[in-house]
Amino acid sequence: MQRTVFFISDGTAITTETLGHSLLTQFPNVAFSQIRIPFVDSPEKAAETVSRINQACEENDAAAIVFLSIIDDDTRAVFYRSKGVILDLFADFIDTLEFALGVAPQATVGQAHGVADEARYEDRIEATNYALSHDDGISLSYENSDLILVGISRTGKTPTCLYMALHFGVKAANYPLTGHDLESQRLPEQLRRNKHKIVGLMIDADRLAQIRETRKPGSRYASMKQCHWEVDAAESLLRSAGIATVHTTHSSIEEIASRVLAHLGMQREMY
Amino acid sequence: MQRTVFFISDGTAITTETLGHSLLTQFPNVAFSQIRIPFVDSPEKAAETVSRINQACEENDAAAIVFLSIIDDDTRAVFYRSKGVILDLFADFIDTLEFALGVAPQATVGQAHGVADEARYEDRIEATNYALSHDDGISLSYENSDLILVGISRTGKTPTCLYMALHFGVKAANYPLTGHDLESQRLPEQLRRNKHKIVGLMIDADRLAQIRETRKPGSRYASMKQCHWEVDAAESLLRSAGIATVHTTHSSIEEIASRVLAHLGMQREMY
Repeated sequence: MQRTVFFISDGTAITTETLGHSLLTQFPNVAFSQIRIPFVDSPEKAAETVSRINQACEENDAAAIVFLSIIDDDTRAVFYRSKGVILDLFADFIDTLEFALGVAPQATVGQAHGVADEARYEDRIEATNYALSHDDGISLSYENSDLILVGISRTGKTPTCLYMALHFGVKAANYPLTGHDLESQRLPEQLRRNKHKIVGLMIDADRLAQIRETRKPGSRYASMKQCHWEVDAAESLLRSAGIATVHTTHSSIEEIASRVLAHLGMQREMY
Repeated sequence: MQRTVFFISDGTAITTETLGHSLLTQFPNVAFSQIRIPFVDSPEKAAETVSRINQACEENDAAAIVFLSIIDDDTRAVFYRSKGVILDLFADFIDTLEFALGVAPQATVGQAHGVADEARYEDRIEATNYALSHDDGISLSYENSDLILVGISRTGKTPTCLYMALHFGVKAANYPLTGHDLESQRLPEQLRRNKHKIVGLMIDADRLAQIRETRKPGSRYASMKQCHWEVDAAESLLRSAGIATVHTTHSSIEEIASRVLAHLGMQREMY
Protein backbone atom coordinates (compact mmCIF):
# COMPACT_ATOMS: atom_id res chain seq x y z
CA MET A 1 0.00 0.00 0.00
CA GLN A 2 1.36 3.38 -1.06
CA ARG A 3 0.13 6.55 0.67
CA THR A 4 1.06 10.10 -0.10
CA VAL A 5 1.60 12.37 2.89
CA PHE A 6 1.60 16.16 2.66
CA PHE A 7 3.15 18.51 5.22
CA ILE A 8 1.61 21.89 4.54
CA SER A 9 2.16 25.16 6.37
CA ASP A 10 1.99 28.92 5.99
CA GLY A 11 5.57 28.95 7.37
CA THR A 12 8.50 26.66 6.65
CA ALA A 13 6.48 23.47 7.33
CA ILE A 14 9.45 22.23 9.35
CA THR A 15 7.50 21.89 12.61
CA THR A 16 4.65 20.25 10.71
CA GLU A 17 6.94 17.71 9.06
CA THR A 18 8.75 16.94 12.31
CA LEU A 19 5.55 16.17 14.19
CA GLY A 20 4.19 14.29 11.18
CA HIS A 21 7.28 12.07 11.06
CA SER A 22 6.95 11.14 14.71
CA LEU A 23 3.35 10.08 14.13
CA LEU A 24 4.12 8.16 10.93
CA THR A 25 6.86 6.12 12.63
CA GLN A 26 4.02 4.42 14.50
CA PHE A 27 2.96 2.84 11.20
CA PRO A 28 6.20 1.18 10.03
CA ASN A 29 4.48 -1.14 7.58
CA VAL A 30 2.98 1.53 5.36
CA ALA A 31 5.05 2.97 2.48
CA PHE A 32 4.68 6.73 2.66
CA SER A 33 5.62 9.09 -0.13
CA GLN A 34 6.19 12.46 1.52
CA ILE A 35 5.79 15.97 0.16
CA ARG A 36 6.55 19.17 2.08
CA ILE A 37 4.85 22.35 0.87
CA PRO A 38 5.93 25.49 2.77
CA PHE A 39 4.67 29.09 2.59
CA VAL A 40 1.03 28.37 1.68
CA ASP A 41 -0.28 31.70 2.89
CA SER A 42 -3.27 32.53 0.71
CA PRO A 43 -6.50 30.81 -0.42
CA GLU A 44 -5.10 30.86 -3.99
CA LYS A 45 -1.97 28.93 -3.00
CA ALA A 46 -4.18 26.62 -0.96
CA ALA A 47 -6.33 25.88 -4.00
CA GLU A 48 -3.24 24.94 -6.06
CA THR A 49 -2.10 22.66 -3.24
CA VAL A 50 -5.51 21.00 -3.01
CA SER A 51 -5.20 20.05 -6.70
CA ARG A 52 -1.98 18.22 -5.91
CA ILE A 53 -3.62 16.49 -2.95
CA ASN A 54 -6.58 15.34 -5.02
CA GLN A 55 -4.29 14.09 -7.78
CA ALA A 56 -2.32 12.02 -5.24
CA CYS A 57 -5.58 10.56 -3.90
CA GLU A 58 -6.50 9.41 -7.40
CA GLU A 59 -3.06 7.99 -8.17
CA ASN A 60 -2.91 6.06 -4.87
CA ASP A 61 -6.59 5.16 -5.07
CA ALA A 62 -6.65 6.08 -1.38
CA ALA A 63 -6.99 9.27 0.63
CA ALA A 64 -3.77 11.24 1.04
CA ILE A 65 -2.76 12.18 4.60
CA VAL A 66 -2.51 15.95 5.07
CA PHE A 67 -0.71 17.43 8.08
CA LEU A 68 -1.81 21.05 8.19
CA SER A 69 -0.49 24.10 10.08
CA ILE A 70 -2.28 27.11 8.70
CA ILE A 71 -3.38 29.99 10.86
CA ASP A 72 -5.60 32.01 8.53
CA ASP A 73 -9.15 30.63 8.65
CA ASP A 74 -9.94 31.30 4.96
CA THR A 75 -6.75 29.62 3.76
CA ARG A 76 -7.23 26.67 6.07
CA ALA A 77 -10.86 26.19 5.04
CA VAL A 78 -9.80 25.46 1.45
CA PHE A 79 -8.14 22.23 2.57
CA TYR A 80 -11.28 20.89 4.15
CA ARG A 81 -12.72 20.70 0.63
CA SER A 82 -9.91 18.37 -0.52
CA LYS A 83 -10.15 14.58 -0.79
CA GLY A 84 -7.35 14.11 1.75
CA VAL A 85 -7.62 13.22 5.43
CA ILE A 86 -6.78 16.42 7.31
CA LEU A 87 -4.74 16.34 10.54
CA ASP A 88 -5.01 19.93 11.68
CA LEU A 89 -2.16 20.82 14.05
CA PHE A 90 -3.55 24.25 14.82
CA ALA A 91 -7.30 24.50 14.94
CA ASP A 92 -8.13 22.20 17.86
CA PHE A 93 -5.18 23.18 20.00
CA ILE A 94 -5.71 26.91 19.49
CA ASP A 95 -9.31 26.49 20.65
CA THR A 96 -8.18 24.58 23.74
CA LEU A 97 -5.54 27.21 24.51
CA GLU A 98 -7.99 30.07 24.03
CA PHE A 99 -10.38 28.44 26.46
CA ALA A 100 -7.65 27.65 29.02
CA LEU A 101 -6.01 31.08 28.84
CA GLY A 102 -9.21 33.07 28.54
CA VAL A 103 -7.76 35.33 25.81
CA ALA A 104 -8.24 35.31 22.05
CA PRO A 105 -5.34 34.28 19.79
CA GLN A 106 -3.77 36.91 17.52
CA ALA A 107 -3.39 35.30 14.14
CA THR A 108 0.17 35.85 12.96
CA VAL A 109 1.38 33.69 10.11
CA GLY A 110 4.43 31.46 10.25
CA GLN A 111 5.73 32.55 13.63
CA ALA A 112 7.09 29.13 14.50
CA HIS A 113 10.38 29.85 12.79
CA GLY A 114 10.15 33.58 12.14
CA VAL A 115 12.61 36.07 13.56
CA ALA A 116 10.17 37.33 16.18
CA ASP A 117 13.13 38.45 18.16
CA GLU A 118 16.28 39.61 16.42
CA ALA A 119 18.33 39.36 19.59
CA ARG A 120 17.59 35.64 19.74
CA TYR A 121 18.55 35.25 16.08
CA GLU A 122 21.88 36.84 16.85
CA ASP A 123 22.32 34.54 19.86
CA ARG A 124 22.01 31.54 17.56
CA ILE A 125 24.50 32.94 15.07
CA GLU A 126 26.94 33.91 17.81
CA ALA A 127 26.65 30.46 19.39
CA THR A 128 27.26 28.85 16.00
CA ASN A 129 30.39 30.94 15.50
CA TYR A 130 31.47 29.99 18.99
CA ALA A 131 31.04 26.29 18.24
CA LEU A 132 33.06 26.64 15.03
CA SER A 133 35.90 28.52 16.72
CA HIS A 134 35.97 26.05 19.63
CA ASP A 135 35.53 22.88 17.60
CA ASP A 136 37.91 19.95 17.93
CA GLY A 137 40.18 21.63 20.48
CA ILE A 138 40.99 24.57 18.16
CA SER A 139 40.81 26.90 21.15
CA LEU A 140 41.17 25.89 24.78
CA SER A 141 39.94 29.19 26.23
CA TYR A 142 36.66 28.24 27.80
CA GLU A 143 35.82 31.38 29.81
CA ASN A 144 32.73 32.14 27.71
CA SER A 145 31.60 28.59 27.06
CA ASP A 146 28.33 27.27 28.44
CA LEU A 147 29.56 23.70 28.18
CA ILE A 148 32.38 21.54 26.84
CA LEU A 149 32.00 18.10 25.29
CA VAL A 150 35.00 15.81 25.55
CA GLY A 151 35.47 12.41 23.99
CA ILE A 152 37.58 10.35 21.64
CA SER A 153 37.29 10.79 17.88
CA ARG A 154 33.87 9.92 16.32
CA THR A 155 31.65 10.07 19.38
CA GLY A 156 29.45 12.83 17.92
CA LYS A 157 31.00 15.90 19.56
CA THR A 158 30.98 18.27 16.59
CA PRO A 159 27.43 17.75 15.28
CA THR A 160 26.07 17.84 18.84
CA CYS A 161 27.80 21.17 19.54
CA LEU A 162 26.50 22.66 16.30
CA TYR A 163 23.00 21.38 16.99
CA MET A 164 22.97 22.89 20.47
CA ALA A 165 24.24 26.20 19.09
CA LEU A 166 21.61 26.37 16.36
CA HIS A 167 18.67 25.20 18.46
CA PHE A 168 19.41 26.31 21.99
CA GLY A 169 21.86 29.19 21.47
CA VAL A 170 24.26 27.30 23.73
CA LYS A 171 27.97 28.11 23.41
CA ALA A 172 29.36 24.61 23.25
CA ALA A 173 33.06 23.85 22.82
CA ASN A 174 34.46 20.41 22.19
CA TYR A 175 37.77 18.78 22.92
CA PRO A 176 39.03 15.50 21.42
CA LEU A 177 40.86 13.33 23.94
CA THR A 178 44.37 12.81 22.58
CA GLY A 179 46.63 9.79 22.87
CA HIS A 180 48.65 11.81 25.37
CA ASP A 181 45.56 12.52 27.53
CA LEU A 182 44.57 8.85 27.46
CA GLU A 183 48.06 7.58 28.27
CA SER A 184 48.75 10.08 31.04
CA GLN A 185 45.15 9.68 32.33
CA ARG A 186 45.13 13.42 32.86
CA LEU A 187 43.14 16.23 31.26
CA PRO A 188 44.77 19.52 30.21
CA GLU A 189 44.74 22.21 32.88
CA GLN A 190 42.22 24.37 30.93
CA LEU A 191 39.71 21.53 31.11
CA ARG A 192 40.35 20.63 34.75
CA ARG A 193 39.59 24.23 35.67
CA ASN A 194 36.22 24.01 33.91
CA LYS A 195 35.18 20.57 35.14
CA HIS A 196 31.68 21.70 36.08
CA LYS A 197 30.95 22.57 32.43
CA ILE A 198 32.16 19.27 30.96
CA VAL A 199 30.17 16.28 29.76
CA GLY A 200 31.97 13.27 28.31
CA LEU A 201 30.63 11.45 25.26
CA MET A 202 31.09 7.69 25.28
CA ILE A 203 30.36 5.03 22.66
CA ASP A 204 30.54 1.23 22.40
CA ALA A 205 33.84 0.07 20.95
CA ASP A 206 32.09 -2.12 18.34
CA ARG A 207 29.99 0.73 17.03
CA LEU A 208 33.00 3.04 17.08
CA ALA A 209 35.04 0.64 14.98
CA GLN A 210 32.16 0.40 12.50
CA ILE A 211 31.91 4.21 12.18
CA ARG A 212 35.66 4.65 11.83
CA GLU A 213 35.87 1.81 9.32
CA THR A 214 33.56 3.63 6.88
CA ARG A 215 35.82 6.67 7.26
CA LYS A 216 39.26 5.07 7.13
CA PRO A 217 38.87 1.46 5.97
CA GLY A 218 41.51 -0.99 7.19
CA SER A 219 43.31 1.62 9.32
CA ARG A 220 44.80 1.13 12.76
CA TYR A 221 42.48 3.98 13.81
CA ALA A 222 39.45 1.83 12.92
CA SER A 223 40.79 -1.44 14.35
CA MET A 224 38.88 -3.17 17.14
CA LYS A 225 42.01 -3.24 19.27
CA GLN A 226 42.58 0.51 19.02
CA CYS A 227 38.89 1.32 19.56
CA HIS A 228 38.70 -0.89 22.66
CA TRP A 229 41.83 0.66 24.08
CA GLU A 230 40.61 4.23 23.50
CA VAL A 231 37.14 3.55 24.91
CA ASP A 232 38.53 1.88 28.04
CA ALA A 233 41.13 4.58 28.59
CA ALA A 234 38.59 7.38 28.08
CA GLU A 235 36.14 5.75 30.47
CA SER A 236 38.69 5.44 33.23
CA LEU A 237 40.06 8.95 32.64
CA LEU A 238 36.59 10.55 32.81
CA ARG A 239 35.57 8.46 35.80
CA SER A 240 38.65 9.37 37.80
CA ALA A 241 38.22 13.03 36.84
CA GLY A 242 34.64 12.85 38.14
CA ILE A 243 33.09 13.84 34.80
CA ALA A 244 29.56 12.71 33.91
CA THR A 245 29.17 10.87 30.60
CA VAL A 246 26.43 10.40 28.03
CA HIS A 247 26.38 7.30 25.85
CA THR A 248 25.94 8.10 22.18
CA THR A 249 25.65 4.59 20.73
CA HIS A 250 22.35 4.32 18.83
CA SER A 251 21.40 7.86 19.83
CA SER A 252 20.43 10.65 17.48
CA ILE A 253 22.04 14.09 17.65
CA GLU A 254 18.82 15.39 19.22
CA GLU A 255 18.93 12.73 21.94
CA ILE A 256 22.59 13.38 22.75
CA ALA A 257 21.97 17.14 22.93
CA SER A 258 18.90 16.66 25.09
CA ARG A 259 20.74 14.37 27.53
CA VAL A 260 23.75 16.66 27.75
CA LEU A 261 21.59 19.67 28.63
CA ALA A 262 19.64 17.61 31.17
CA HIS A 263 22.91 16.42 32.75
CA LEU A 264 24.07 19.99 33.27
CA GLY A 265 20.63 21.04 34.48
CA MET A 266 20.38 23.59 31.67
CA GLN A 267 16.82 24.64 30.89
CA ARG A 268 17.35 26.45 27.62
CA GLU A 269 14.39 27.40 25.53
CA MET A 270 14.53 26.11 21.99
CA TYR A 271 14.84 28.32 18.91
CA MET B 1 -0.88 36.81 34.14
CA GLN B 2 1.83 34.18 34.51
CA ARG B 3 1.28 30.68 33.12
CA THR B 4 3.59 27.70 33.33
CA VAL B 5 3.87 25.58 30.21
CA PHE B 6 5.25 22.05 30.20
CA PHE B 7 6.61 20.24 27.14
CA ILE B 8 6.62 16.58 28.08
CA SER B 9 7.65 13.59 25.99
CA ASP B 10 8.92 10.03 26.18
CA GLY B 11 11.63 11.15 23.74
CA THR B 12 13.67 14.35 23.59
CA ALA B 13 10.56 16.60 23.79
CA ILE B 14 12.10 18.66 20.98
CA THR B 15 9.21 18.12 18.57
CA THR B 16 6.76 18.79 21.37
CA GLU B 17 8.42 22.05 22.34
CA THR B 18 8.71 23.20 18.73
CA LEU B 19 5.01 22.70 18.04
CA GLY B 20 4.14 24.18 21.43
CA HIS B 21 6.13 27.34 20.66
CA SER B 22 4.35 27.87 17.39
CA LEU B 23 1.00 27.66 19.16
CA LEU B 24 2.05 29.91 22.05
CA THR B 25 3.21 32.67 19.66
CA GLN B 26 -0.48 33.17 18.91
CA PHE B 27 -0.90 34.48 22.47
CA PRO B 28 1.74 37.22 22.63
CA ASN B 29 0.21 38.95 25.65
CA VAL B 30 0.53 36.06 28.06
CA ALA B 31 3.78 35.62 30.01
CA PHE B 32 4.72 31.95 29.73
CA SER B 33 7.25 30.24 31.93
CA GLN B 34 8.39 27.17 29.99
CA ILE B 35 9.69 23.83 31.21
CA ARG B 36 10.85 20.97 28.96
CA ILE B 37 10.82 17.48 30.48
CA PRO B 38 12.23 14.79 28.16
CA PHE B 39 12.44 11.00 28.51
CA VAL B 40 9.27 10.48 30.60
CA ASP B 41 8.88 6.83 29.69
CA SER B 42 7.22 5.14 32.67
CA PRO B 43 4.16 5.72 34.86
CA GLU B 44 6.56 6.37 37.78
CA LYS B 45 8.32 9.21 35.96
CA ALA B 46 4.93 10.48 34.86
CA ALA B 47 3.74 10.62 38.48
CA GLU B 48 6.80 12.69 39.48
CA THR B 49 6.13 15.04 36.60
CA VAL B 50 2.48 15.41 37.57
CA SER B 51 3.61 16.63 41.01
CA ARG B 52 5.57 19.41 39.32
CA ILE B 53 2.58 20.30 37.16
CA ASN B 54 0.23 20.46 40.14
CA GLN B 55 2.70 22.59 42.07
CA ALA B 56 2.92 25.05 39.15
CA CYS B 57 -0.88 25.21 39.03
CA GLU B 58 -0.98 26.18 42.70
CA GLU B 59 1.82 28.73 42.40
CA ASN B 60 0.23 30.41 39.35
CA ASP B 61 -3.27 29.99 40.77
CA ALA B 62 -4.19 28.89 37.24
CA ALA B 63 -4.04 25.67 35.28
CA ALA B 64 -0.65 24.90 33.74
CA ILE B 65 -0.58 24.16 30.01
CA VAL B 66 0.78 20.68 29.26
CA PHE B 67 1.92 19.73 25.74
CA LEU B 68 2.15 15.97 25.78
CA SER B 69 3.77 13.46 23.39
CA ILE B 70 3.66 10.10 25.10
CA ILE B 71 2.99 6.90 23.24
CA ASP B 72 2.49 4.38 26.04
CA ASP B 73 -1.15 4.43 27.16
CA ASP B 74 -0.45 3.75 30.85
CA THR B 75 2.17 6.50 31.06
CA ARG B 76 -0.01 8.96 29.20
CA ALA B 77 -3.04 8.23 31.36
CA VAL B 78 -1.20 9.49 34.46
CA PHE B 79 -1.21 13.02 33.06
CA TYR B 80 -4.96 13.10 32.66
CA ARG B 81 -5.16 13.00 36.46
CA SER B 82 -3.11 16.22 36.78
CA LYS B 83 -4.54 19.70 37.33
CA GLY B 84 -3.04 20.95 34.07
CA VAL B 85 -4.77 21.46 30.73
CA ILE B 86 -3.54 18.65 28.48
CA LEU B 87 -2.81 19.22 24.78
CA ASP B 88 -2.18 15.69 23.58
CA LEU B 89 -0.13 15.71 20.39
CA PHE B 90 -0.42 11.98 19.89
CA ALA B 91 -3.68 10.42 20.97
CA ASP B 92 -6.15 12.10 18.62
CA PHE B 93 -3.91 12.10 15.59
CA ILE B 94 -2.93 8.46 16.01
CA ASP B 95 -6.62 7.53 16.11
CA THR B 96 -7.27 9.53 12.94
CA LEU B 97 -4.29 7.92 11.21
CA GLU B 98 -5.32 4.44 12.28
CA PHE B 99 -8.75 5.01 10.85
CA ALA B 100 -7.45 6.53 7.60
CA LEU B 101 -4.78 3.89 7.03
CA GLY B 102 -6.80 0.93 8.22
CA VAL B 103 -3.87 -0.52 10.19
CA ALA B 104 -3.08 -0.44 13.91
CA PRO B 105 -0.15 1.65 15.17
CA GLN B 106 2.87 -0.12 16.65
CA ALA B 107 3.76 1.70 19.81
CA THR B 108 7.46 2.50 19.72
CA VAL B 109 8.70 5.09 22.16
CA GLY B 110 10.57 8.23 21.17
CA GLN B 111 11.01 7.44 17.51
CA ALA B 112 10.75 11.08 16.46
CA HIS B 113 14.45 11.61 16.97
CA GLY B 114 15.74 8.09 17.43
CA VAL B 115 18.30 6.51 15.15
CA ALA B 116 15.75 4.38 13.36
CA ASP B 117 18.12 4.19 10.47
CA GLU B 118 21.86 4.30 11.06
CA ALA B 119 22.55 5.06 7.42
CA ARG B 120 20.56 8.27 7.72
CA TYR B 121 22.44 9.18 10.89
CA GLU B 122 25.68 8.81 9.01
CA ASP B 123 24.32 10.93 6.17
CA ARG B 124 23.75 13.78 8.62
CA ILE B 125 27.23 13.47 10.07
CA GLU B 126 28.82 13.24 6.65
CA ALA B 127 26.87 16.28 5.44
CA THR B 128 27.95 18.21 8.55
CA ASN B 129 31.58 17.34 7.90
CA TYR B 130 31.09 18.41 4.29
CA ALA B 131 29.67 21.77 5.38
CA LEU B 132 32.61 22.32 7.73
CA SER B 133 35.21 21.45 5.12
CA HIS B 134 33.48 23.62 2.48
CA ASP B 135 32.65 26.56 4.73
CA ASP B 136 33.63 30.10 3.83
CA GLY B 137 35.40 29.17 0.59
CA ILE B 138 37.88 26.82 2.34
CA SER B 139 37.56 24.41 -0.56
CA LEU B 140 36.37 25.28 -4.06
CA SER B 141 35.94 21.68 -5.20
CA TYR B 142 32.22 21.35 -5.59
CA GLU B 143 31.91 17.99 -7.40
CA ASN B 144 30.14 16.34 -4.48
CA SER B 145 28.13 19.31 -3.29
CA ASP B 146 24.34 19.34 -3.46
CA LEU B 147 24.26 23.11 -3.40
CA ILE B 148 26.44 26.19 -2.90
CA LEU B 149 25.43 29.37 -1.11
CA VAL B 150 27.19 32.54 -2.19
CA GLY B 151 26.93 35.99 -0.67
CA ILE B 152 28.84 38.77 1.01
CA SER B 153 29.93 38.48 4.64
CA ARG B 154 27.12 38.19 7.26
CA THR B 155 24.25 37.11 5.08
CA GLY B 156 23.74 33.86 6.99
CA LYS B 157 25.63 31.42 4.75
CA THR B 158 27.39 29.36 7.42
CA PRO B 159 24.49 28.69 9.84
CA THR B 160 22.18 27.94 6.90
CA CYS B 161 24.63 25.38 5.48
CA LEU B 162 25.04 23.72 8.89
CA TYR B 163 21.28 23.67 9.43
CA MET B 164 20.67 22.04 6.06
CA ALA B 165 23.38 19.46 6.77
CA LEU B 166 21.98 18.55 10.19
CA HIS B 167 18.31 18.51 9.21
CA PHE B 168 18.22 17.52 5.57
CA GLY B 169 21.54 15.71 5.10
CA VAL B 170 22.28 18.16 2.30
CA LYS B 171 25.93 18.71 1.37
CA ALA B 172 26.00 22.49 1.28
CA ALA B 173 29.14 24.50 0.53
CA ASN B 174 29.37 28.24 0.89
CA TYR B 175 31.50 30.87 -0.78
CA PRO B 176 31.95 34.45 0.44
CA LEU B 177 32.01 36.99 -2.39
CA THR B 178 35.36 38.76 -2.19
CA GLY B 179 36.25 42.36 -3.01
CA HIS B 180 37.90 41.02 -6.15
CA ASP B 181 34.74 39.18 -7.24
CA LEU B 182 32.63 42.27 -6.63
CA GLU B 183 35.01 44.63 -8.44
CA SER B 184 35.57 42.36 -11.42
CA GLN B 185 31.86 41.41 -11.45
CA ARG B 186 32.95 37.88 -12.19
CA LEU B 187 32.68 34.64 -10.21
CA PRO B 188 35.58 32.18 -9.95
CA GLU B 189 35.62 29.50 -12.63
CA GLN B 190 34.78 26.72 -10.10
CA LEU B 191 31.54 28.49 -9.30
CA ARG B 192 30.62 29.35 -12.89
CA ARG B 193 30.90 25.65 -13.74
CA ASN B 194 28.41 24.80 -10.96
CA LYS B 195 25.92 27.58 -11.59
CA HIS B 196 22.91 25.26 -11.44
CA LYS B 197 23.74 24.42 -7.80
CA ILE B 198 24.13 28.02 -6.59
CA VAL B 199 21.73 30.19 -4.64
CA GLY B 200 22.75 33.72 -3.65
CA LEU B 201 21.92 35.13 -0.23
CA MET B 202 21.03 38.82 -0.19
CA ILE B 203 20.31 41.20 2.67
CA ASP B 204 19.23 44.83 3.11
CA ALA B 205 22.21 47.15 3.49
CA ASP B 206 20.74 48.74 6.66
CA ARG B 207 20.30 45.42 8.40
CA LEU B 208 23.74 44.29 7.23
CA ALA B 209 25.39 47.38 8.72
CA GLN B 210 23.56 46.74 12.00
CA ILE B 211 24.75 43.12 12.15
CA ARG B 212 28.33 44.01 11.23
CA GLU B 213 28.34 46.89 13.72
CA THR B 214 27.71 44.51 16.65
CA ARG B 215 30.63 42.44 15.39
CA LYS B 216 33.16 45.13 14.51
CA PRO B 217 31.95 48.44 15.96
CA GLY B 218 33.02 51.57 14.11
CA SER B 219 34.84 49.64 11.37
CA ARG B 220 34.87 50.43 7.66
CA TYR B 221 33.47 46.88 7.24
CA ALA B 222 30.35 47.90 9.18
CA SER B 223 29.93 51.35 7.60
CA MET B 224 26.74 52.13 5.67
CA LYS B 225 28.81 53.18 2.66
CA GLN B 226 30.70 49.87 2.50
CA CYS B 227 27.55 47.80 3.13
CA HIS B 228 25.63 49.64 0.40
CA TRP B 229 28.46 49.21 -2.06
CA GLU B 230 28.81 45.45 -1.34
CA VAL B 231 25.06 44.81 -1.50
CA ASP B 232 24.70 46.67 -4.81
CA ALA B 233 27.76 45.02 -6.33
CA ALA B 234 26.64 41.54 -5.20
CA GLU B 235 23.15 42.09 -6.57
CA SER B 236 24.41 43.10 -9.98
CA LEU B 237 27.00 40.32 -10.08
CA LEU B 238 24.46 37.62 -9.23
CA ARG B 239 21.87 39.06 -11.60
CA SER B 240 24.26 39.15 -14.53
CA ALA B 241 25.45 35.62 -13.71
CA GLY B 242 21.80 34.47 -13.78
CA ILE B 243 21.85 33.21 -10.20
CA ALA B 244 18.63 33.10 -8.15
CA THR B 245 18.71 34.86 -4.79
CA VAL B 246 16.97 34.50 -1.44
CA HIS B 247 16.57 37.53 0.83
CA THR B 248 17.63 36.83 4.38
CA THR B 249 16.63 40.10 6.06
CA HIS B 250 14.25 39.34 8.94
CA SER B 251 14.30 35.62 8.08
CA SER B 252 15.17 32.81 10.45
CA ILE B 253 17.70 30.13 9.56
CA GLU B 254 14.81 27.71 9.04
CA GLU B 255 13.13 30.09 6.59
CA ILE B 256 16.31 30.69 4.61
CA ALA B 257 17.00 26.94 4.42
CA SER B 258 13.44 26.21 3.38
CA ARG B 259 13.48 28.85 0.62
CA VAL B 260 16.87 27.73 -0.68
CA LEU B 261 15.72 24.12 -1.01
CA ALA B 262 12.47 25.24 -2.65
CA HIS B 263 14.44 27.38 -5.14
CA LEU B 264 16.52 24.41 -6.21
CA GLY B 265 13.46 22.17 -6.31
CA MET B 266 15.00 19.85 -3.72
CA GLN B 267 12.48 17.69 -1.91
CA ARG B 268 14.62 16.35 0.92
CA GLU B 269 13.01 14.55 3.79
CA MET B 270 13.83 16.04 7.17
CA TYR B 271 15.84 14.26 9.85
